[in-house]
Amino acid sequence: MTARTLAALVVAGVTLLVGGCASQPTMQGDLVIAKQGSFFVGGREVRSDKMSMVPTVTAAGTIVVDQMYVRYQVPPSAKRFPIVMVHGCCLTGKTWETTPDGRMGWDEFFLRKGYGTYVVDQAWRGRSAWNPAAINQVKAGAAAPDTLPTLFAAGQEPAWAIFRFGPEHGKTFPGMKFPLDAQAEFWKQMVPDWFNALPMPNPTVPSLGELARKLNGAVLMSHSQSGIYPFQAAALDTTGIAAIVSIEPSACPAVTSDLTPYTKMPILVLYGDYMELSPRWAPRLKLCREFVAAANARGGKAQLVVLPEIGIPGNSHMLMQDTNSLEIAEWLSKWLDGALRTGG
Amino acid sequence: MTARTLAALVVAGVTLLVGGCASQPTMQGDLVIAKQGSFFVGGREVRSDKMSMVPTVTAAGTIVVDQMYVRYQVPPSAKRFPIVMVHGCCLTGKTWETTPDGRMGWDEFFLRKGYGTYVVDQAWRGRSAWNPAAINQVKAGAAAPDTLPTLFAAGQEPAWAIFRFGPEHGKTFPGMKFPLDAQAEFWKQMVPDWFNALPMPNPTVPSLGELARKLNGAVLMSHSQSGIYPFQAAALDTTGIAAIVSIEPSACPAVTSDLTPYTKMPILVLYGDYMELSPRWAPRLKLCREFVAAANARGGKAQLVVLPEIGIPGNSHMLMQDTNSLEIAEWLSKWLDGALRTGG
Repeated sequence: MTARTLAALVVAGVTLLVGGCASQPTMQGDLVIAKQGSFFVGGREVRSDKMSMVPTVTAAGTIVVDQMYVRYQVPPSAKRFPIVMVHGCCLTGKTWETTPDGRMGWDEFFLRKGYGTYVVDQAWRGRSAWNPAAINQVKAGAAAPDTLPTLFAAGQEPAWAIFRFGPEHGKTFPGMKFPLDAQAEFWKQMVPDWFNALPMPNPTVPSLGELARKLNGAVLMSHSQSGIYPFQAAALDTTGIAAIVSIEPSACPAVTSDLTPYTKMPILVLYGDYMELSPRWAPRLKLCREFVAAANARGGKAQLVVLPEIGIPGNSHMLMQDTNSLEIAEWLSKWLDGALRTGG
Repeated sequence: MTARTLAALVVAGVTLLVGGCASQPTMQGDLVIAKQGSFFVGGREVRSDKMSMVPTVTAAGTIVVDQMYVRYQVPPSAKRFPIVMVHGCCLTGKTWETTPDGRMGWDEFFLRKGYGTYVVDQAWRGRSAWNPAAINQVKAGAAAPDTLPTLFAAGQEPAWAIFRFGPEHGKTFPGMKFPLDAQAEFWKQMVPDWFNALPMPNPTVPSLGELARKLNGAVLMSHSQSGIYPFQAAALDTTGIAAIVSIEPSACPAVTSDLTPYTKMPILVLYGDYMELSPRWAPRLKLCREFVAAANARGGKAQLVVLPEIGIPGNSHMLMQDTNSLEIAEWLSKWLDGALRTGG
C-alpha cells in the first residue's frame, strides 16, 4: 500500500467519522445514543372488588397507581446533569417531542446538545396508570354519583386563551408564534386530567425527587401545571436537584413559605409573550416575580425571564412548540451551561 | 507523514468506525438513528357541555378522541418495511420498550436489526386521549350511573394466569421464563382499559391501516387483545400491510369470514408455552390453527408457530419481556427477513 493510498483512506475515514456518525453533539444528521429505554418511578398498590366491569376479567384485584413513567435517551459523553422534562395540564410527555408542525422537539434538541433527557408522564396520565375503581363502584350501584372523581378535559375553545394563542378562541395575538396551521395535530396531544382528584402535592412530585437522586443529580424542567412540582420536590428534599427550570409555571412557591430550599440551586422561571394581556397569566407572573425576589433576598440564585424583555417576542404558553422553539432552546441551553458550571 | 504514521491513523479511524459508531446494525454499543419523533394518526372531534368538572377550566368544549399516538425511530439505511408494534390489553406501548428487569426491548432490538420501529398507544389508552364527558355527566347528575363506561383494570391476581406465569396467582409453570423477580416493575406497566366501551372494530384498527399506507408499507405486529387488529385492518384495506405478525392473539379471523384479504401478505401467528395447560388459551390456539389452515387452503402464506414446537420452551404470554426475549426476536427477525424477501 502506498502512502498516497493510505492518505486517501485516512481522508475517507475522517469524512465518514465527521459526516456519518459524529460523536460530538450535532444539531442535524444522524443521532448517536449511548443508551435509551424506559422505566417507572414510585407507585403504590391499591385493591378493589370493582377493578373490572367486564365478565372476562375478574372483578377483584390489586393494581399499582401513582408511578411515573419515564422514557430516556443519553448521548455518548453526556454532560454531568441530565434534564428531566415534565409536561403540564391536560398533556403528556408528548409535549417535548416532535412539534405539531413536525419539527424537532426539545427532547431531541437537548440530547443533541449533550444532555441525557428524561421525559415523564405525570402520575395518573399517559402511560402512568390511573385507578378505575371509583368509577366502577358508581356504575355497579355501590357508591353515589357524587363520589366520582373530579375529572376535566380542556376543550379547544377555553384552551385557546389559556395557551395564549390569543385573547379568545379563534383570535390570535399579533405576531404570535404557535404553529396554528398544525393546530389539529396539537389538539390530539391533549388528554383528560386527574389533577384535581389527586392529593397535594401531586404524586408526581416525590417521584421527581426520587428520580433526581437516582440520577445522582438532574435538572428538573417543568411546564405550566407542573411548574411548581420541582419546587415542591425541593421542599421535600433538595438532594439531586441540580437546577430548576420552570417554564410558564401556573404557580411559584409562596413568598411566605420557607424559602431555604430554593436557595440551594440555580433557578430559572421563564415566560413567553402577552403576559400582561392575559387576565389568567398576569397575576401569576407578578407572584413569580415576587417569589424570585424573595428567594434572592434569602441568598438564592433565581432568575425570572420574560422572553420579549430579552428580545424574543411572540411566544405562546406552548413555547417549546412555537415556530422559534429551537431559538429559545438554544438560549436555554446556554443559560443551563452557565448555571451548572457556576452553580447559578 | 510517514507511511507508518498513516497506517496507524487508518487503524485508529477504522477502530473508531467499528467500535464507536458503526453505521451497520449492531446489537450493542452506540445506537445510530437517522430520524425519530412522534405523531398521531386518526382522531375525531367530540363536543360536550361537561368536559370539565373544575371551576378553573370552562365546562363546555371540544376535544379530539380516537387518535393513535405513534413514537418512531428509523436507523440509517433502514430496511424496506418498518415494523408497527401494537400492545395488548391493559398495557401501552411500554410493552415493547425496556423489559421489567431492565433489558433491551423489542423496539430497540428491531431498530438495531435495521428496521424502522413505530410503537403505538391504542386509542383511548396511554398518550392517546379518552373522553371524560360520560363520567362527568353522571357526576353532575345529568345522566344515570348505568350510562358510565364499562371500564376494567386487570388485577395482578387474575392477570397472573392470563399472562400464563402459572396456573393460578402465585404458582409458576415449571421453567417459565418471565422475569418474576422484576414483577413489581411489570405491574406498573398496566393501565385501565376502555376496550369494552369502544365500538368494534376498535378505533385503533383503521388508524393502523392508515399508518401502514402512510409509511408506504409496513409490518403490523400485534399482541394479545390487539392480535386481531392487523387482520381487521386488512379486511378494511390490505394496501400497505407488508406482513402481519400476531403475537399471542386472543382471536384470529373466523374461518367463516371472507379470507381473501389474508392471502395477500405473509402472516405469522406466534404463541409461547403452556398453551394446553390454560383453559383460556387452549381454545384460542385451536381456532387460530383452523384460521391458518383455512387461509392457506385459499392460497394464503400463513404460518402458526408454537415456540416449544421449534425448540424454544418456557415462554409466557409476555414473551417479548421473557428472559429469552431476544432469542425469540432473533428468530422472528430471520422469519421476517425471509418472508419480506420472498413474499412469504
